[in-house]
Amino acid sequence: MQIAPPYLLFIGDATDHLSIKMARGAADWRPELCVGEYSIDGCTVTTGLEQLDIKQAAAKGAKSFVLGFANSGGVLEQKWLPYIHEALENGMDVVSGLHDKMTDFDDIRAKAKATGQQLLDIRHPKAEFKTGTGVKRTGKRLLTVGTDCSVGKMYTSLSLEKAMKSKGYNVDFRATGQCGILIAGSGVAIDCVISDFLSGATEGLSPDAANDHWDIIEGQGSLSHPAFAGVSLGLLHGSQPDAIVICHALERTHMRGLPDSKFPSIANTIELNLQAAKLTNPNAKIVGITVNTSMVSVEQGRAICQQLSEEFDLPCVDPLRDGTDSIVENLS
Amino acid sequence: MQIAPPYLLFIGDATDHLSIKMARGAADWRPELCVGEYSIDGCTVTTGLEQLDIKQAAAKGAKSFVLGFANSGGVLEQKWLPYIHEALENGMDVVSGLHDKMTDFDDIRAKAKATGQQLLDIRHPKAEFKTGTGVKRTGKRLLTVGTDCSVGKMYTSLSLEKAMKSKGYNVDFRATGQCGILIAGSGVAIDCVISDFLSGATEGLSPDAANDHWDIIEGQGSLSHPAFAGVSLGLLHGSQPDAIVICHALERTHMRGLPDSKFPSIANTIELNLQAAKLTNPNAKIVGITVNTSMVSVEQGRAICQQLSEEFDLPCVDPLRDGTDSIVENLS
Repeated sequence: MQIAPPYLLFIGDATDHLSIKMARGAADWRPELCVGEYSIDGCTVTTGLEQLDIKQAAAKGAKSFVLGFANSGGVLEQKWLPYIHEALENGMDVVSGLHDKMTDFDDIRAKAKATGQQLLDIRHPKAEFKTGTGVKRTGKRLLTVGTDCSVGKMYTSLSLEKAMKSKGYNVDFRATGQCGILIAGSGVAIDCVISDFLSGATEGLSPDAANDHWDIIEGQGSLSHPAFAGVSLGLLHGSQPDAIVICHALERTHMRGLPDSKFPSIANTIELNLQAAKLTNPNAKIVGITVNTSMVSVEQGRAICQQLSEEFDLPCVDPLRDGTDSIVENLS
Repeated sequence: MQIAPPYLLFIGDATDHLSIKMARGAADWRPELCVGEYSIDGCTVTTGLEQLDIKQAAAKGAKSFVLGFANSGGVLEQKWLPYIHEALENGMDVVSGLHDKMTDFDDIRAKAKATGQQLLDIRHPKAEFKTGTGVKRTGKRLLTVGTDCSVGKMYTSLSLEKAMKSKGYNVDFRATGQCGILIAGSGVAIDCVISDFLSGATEGLSPDAANDHWDIIEGQGSLSHPAFAGVSLGLLHGSQPDAIVICHALERTHMRGLPDSKFPSIANTIELNLQAAKLTNPNAKIVGITVNTSMVSVEQGRAICQQLSEEFDLPCVDPLRDGTDSIVENLS
């Protein structure tokens, strides 16, 4: 599966900045892949990109119409179907990260067939995966792991990719969630894979490569999250990471979505991940810590990172405020 | 999903004892659910049950026709389709644990619809699962975990259920694989669930129960298996076990299917499982060890169990040779 650029980011009538995470991710990290944004009456948020409707975007060469919004439940509402039809008629593939599949709508499927365009339901992997083998692959791999869900694993991964590229590294970002897939143009929504193939799908996502090549693999969940630790472990084993970056967010008191689940310490997160990683890569090591410090001042954030850096003897940064150069310098 | 008894176990033209694991499991552990066995020319193995063809079984009241064999790849071969048709025509549901879905064959689906019978592809869970919550449930739970795949977790679970029933416990066996599901009549093939729902599906499989009720949950995989540890961890977290039994097999030198993957020690298996279990049940404890000693003499097997029992200060038995009474006595 490969998403054809450039994209038109459709954000509908969104009013919540968080609900257009898909669109923002692409606009922030791959503006060169985006021809513009399309919003309709009632929309109060924006990615900052140029406003274009479907015909204007098509005239500018847009190849993919991206449903860049989310709603609770991941429902594909009837009101969006005419826009999907129009995009297909204007020569675009349609990309959705919603739970509901576009291919379950007969008329959309018929229109896609008639127009020769693709429907890419990126939360529903179609590939035939194999079970994992644990066999060591060539090339180097870095995996971002978290104290919790939604602590900045994707942003950390993308910041690392950017820093490494600017230093001349041979590097690829490997996406494991729908936002990441839109940014990378390909990838596997790992939490949507059948459990039996968790590690195997991850192995396939990051194949043998040149000895000096790095894959930066986007982590998911947390080994300490009661709902998602299985996904995190399969992803960790399949990644065989040489380098692991711990991602953390301030001011969390419990695991995301679970008020009764205690938040793990960074020390515990390091220990759990290192222990598990060694099953498929005995040389795995922790190379840095990133912290989402957006809820405190820049000065406070830096002081916290400095303290963690000393405590764990590792580079520690806020990837958005400070970049991740210091972590890249710590790669062997 | 509930499989209607009694079953007719169809083993086709199987010549390998291992390939009729599904049928043997049901015949060994639930003979009262089986009306008989149906094999055809060329078959050289048997479950030991009475031979009946489809019409004879129907006359004896058979309600489910079970494809009791497996092949590598889990392919549903064309040659079996006439038997499925005949079973449907004779008023039976059809149960398959193969990878290929019966419902993908148009003519089988049409026949099932016409006859009003069900097609149960038990490796393809159809339920709508929720993500896990980690919230503690009422009742008691025991989970069997392994040093590896195929070390006897299902047989240990069923032996424990039997021993507990005979001592008057209020107990249910909760199946997580296709053989177990056939034996229990229901369950979830946990490695066939979408990864996001691993823990949630396990939570649903073993709901709130009376305080003195025990669920014996069939484990899958191993925390030390590079391909399947994610499944094992999700199952462990969702199970919230009060009691864990370690299952082991003699004469393994590497993980099943992976010649390069080292076999873990029992001590390591205990440590990994206990550490992970405490995330969702801080009171989890190891209550016993079972060993498949079938590759050595009864005396040698007993000596090995005795030695392990002393080393870990836990009851240790071969569940088939010795039963699991000593482990049940160790439940608090």
